[in-house]
Amino acid sequence: MPASKVTIDATDSLSADDFKAVFRGHPGGVSVITADAGDGPVALTATSVASISVDPPLLVFSISALSSAADVLSRAATIVVHSLDVHDLEVAKLGATSGIDRFAQSQSWTRLSTGETVFDNVRAWVRCDVIQRIQAGTSTVIVARALQAHIERDAQPGELGDALVYHNRSWHHLNENSRLNG
Amino acid sequence: MPASKVTIDATDSLSADDFKAVFRGHPGGVSVITADAGDGPVALTATSVASISVDPPLLVFSISALSSAADVLSRAATIVVHSLDVHDLEVAKLGATSGIDRFAQSQSWTRLSTGETVFDNVRAWVRCDVIQRIQAGTSTVIVARALQAHIERDAQPGELGDALVYHNRSWHHLNENSRLNG
Repeated sequence: MPASKVTIDATDSLSADDFKAVFRGHPGGVSVITADAGDGPVALTATSVASISVDPPLLVFSISALSSAADVLSRAATIVVHSLDVHDLEVAKLGATSGIDRFAQSQSWTRLSTGETVFDNVRAWVRCDVIQRIQAGTSTVIVARALQAHIERDAQPGELGDALVYHNRSWHHLNENSRLNG
Repeated sequence: MPASKVTIDATDSLSADDFKAVFRGHPGGVSVITADAGDGPVALTATSVASISVDPPLLVFSISALSSAADVLSRAATIVVHSLDVHDLEVAKLGATSGIDRFAQSQSWTRLSTGETVFDNVRAWVRCDVIQRIQAGTSTVIVARALQAHIERDAQPGELGDALVYHNRSWHHLNENSRLNG
């Protein structure tokens, strides 16, 4: 598991406020990532998960050093990425709320035989091993390889499903009214 | 600009079909990325762009080696990420269509004084320098730092704007009907 560190010269960078203004207009799908490095599970909600390759099956996401899950994610060999739909909104909010025990409700999650924690009844989850961690500024970019998946609510190609989107502090449900023709 | 290569053992990986089934249910915001390494501009549409840090201002995206833009993106020192809304649907389609000259309409794009190509009137664009390229399977993960931005259509915090989402082969427009309460 190689790691690399990037030194960034902040001279001439865009200001944080301007950068935030660009990205608050950029919507994203919603995931909850869980991990356990041996001292208890952590969970966080992220909109940065993206598929980068299907063969091998690889995904990428990032985590801020300020996240309560950062330490465990820096050590865990495997993770679970839950890709959520609108039926999973409570799980999405759970992973986005600070200062709470995200595993307090013991009936809402289970452990796989391989040890990872999985939230029950989410649209889909993927168990992954971490392939690479890249330090970038105050965040870590994590590349992970899919080992195992479960799809609770499948959408065939072209089907709408009940897709969940986060955009500028609001949650959205894609529907026939939101679909554009062409 | 350090580079690193990851060797992936495909044993025990999830199948490509199962991985695709997970991610076709995962919506994403839409960007078009342009670059020019000195031998003419390229453009591609991507749903993998995510903000990873605001100070320093960093973003990440991935590109398949099969993309016609891959070679130029492997060499260009700077890039422009255009974050699109529904008014930019033609630009999104342009960058997603194979086998065409994406810069044939000379009136639809301009060159910045620094040389990069920018599509006109898009919601927002960010000029970046490439901080790191990570080879991962058949794709490259690119971390870039924002140097300069322009926001044509700003959305204040909490405002809806005309956000564009790609999901399972369809384009969507977020609106008041798609917004979930709470």
